[in-house]
Amino acid sequence: MLNSIPSFARLVTELGKLPGIGQKTATRLAFFILRQPASEAEALAEAIRGLKEKIRFCSRCFHITESDPCPLCSNPGRDDALLCVVEEPQDLIAIERSRSFRGRYHVLHGALSPLDGVGPDDLKIRELLLRLKDHQVTEVLLATNFTVEGEATALYLARLIHPLGIRVTRLAYGIPMGSDLEFVDEVTVNRAVEGRRDL
Amino acid sequence: MLNSIPSFARLVTELGKLPGIGQKTATRLAFFILRQPASEAEALAEAIRGLKEKIRFCSRCFHITESDPCPLCSNPGRDDALLCVVEEPQDLIAIERSRSFRGRYHVLHGALSPLDGVGPDDLKIRELLLRLKDHQVTEVLLATNFTVEGEATALYLARLIHPLGIRVTRLAYGIPMGSDLEFVDEVTVNRAVEGRRDL
Repeated sequence: MLNSIPSFARLVTELGKLPGIGQKTATRLAFFILRQPASEAEALAEAIRGLKEKIRFCSRCFHITESDPCPLCSNPGRDDALLCVVEEPQDLIAIERSRSFRGRYHVLHGALSPLDGVGPDDLKIRELLLRLKDHQVTEVLLATNFTVEGEATALYLARLIHPLGIRVTRLAYGIPMGSDLEFVDEVTVNRAVEGRRDL
Repeated sequence: MLNSIPSFARLVTELGKLPGIGQKTATRLAFFILRQPASEAEALAEAIRGLKEKIRFCSRCFHITESDPCPLCSNPGRDDALLCVVEEPQDLIAIERSRSFRGRYHVLHGALSPLDGVGPDDLKIRELLLRLKDHQVTEVLLATNFTVEGEATALYLARLIHPLGIRVTRLAYGIPMGSDLEFVDEVTVNRAVEGRRDL
């Protein structure tokens, strides 16, 4: 039926390629865009185009940026001795949002996952080791995800960095704020007990 | 944090205006688009732009179309005596998909909703009555939604069309295919009993 309206069918197809958006949602979004003023649709189209045109990866930390080096790498107010390693730009953003870290970052762009064919050469690990060679960094905080892949990546990196005489730390395991103990999984409770602190 | 990457923040804002897409989903989609090849992003941007450029409403039935009159109105194989009235283009598409109707359509572009300030003049009702004046139509099938607004609109239209001596019908109420009677709401069961048929 939609074949008789090719430009509509085309937008539904393109929207349907986005993650978590199936045929039904894509159709709903296309109808929404159709009912919007042309200026709104133009703004969305232009924003998509602008993203691909303007955004690149920082040549130092591999975070997304419009200028190279990125504002985080070129900010003189941050601590060069501390380096936080994350999997993805969105993880960096989450840590920045917490305002708990004032060092530099390094984005791996993934985690080791042999089953998916992701090995050390597919991540920015060579570039990380190169950055550590200038002897400015005294502590590497491994902030990969707390998944099987993220944990494996953290262990792998720790083994590579320890010989360089640099302190390697990992984000704390524990109970998330606002949780009811009753509903926290047993592995997390276990780690929280192991990591208990004096008050 | 995202303020330091204006083109990224802009896309998140624009995507966040779409229905059912909040800040988090918008960010996820923006990262997905960022990781896609430029050609994919360009295809999406172009599809959005193309939609607004090419699609108009058919001047006869007010369905979305790229040519005027639309393929449904200009198809000589359809029955001019039967006219199906729907609220939105997506309702028309749903009926077409069922392959159960071979007449013409009329899209109202909404339903009467006094609380939302939608009155008869905001819908394509005047245009509907104009179409009925050429005496080709012998039956109007009201296929507005089975909501309070859709039902009210159907009743309102029936009262306007009856004096023209045209047969007015409504889609059947009943139990949807594949339903378990136990879980069907009581109003629907009530209507299904009232509308029971001989076998």
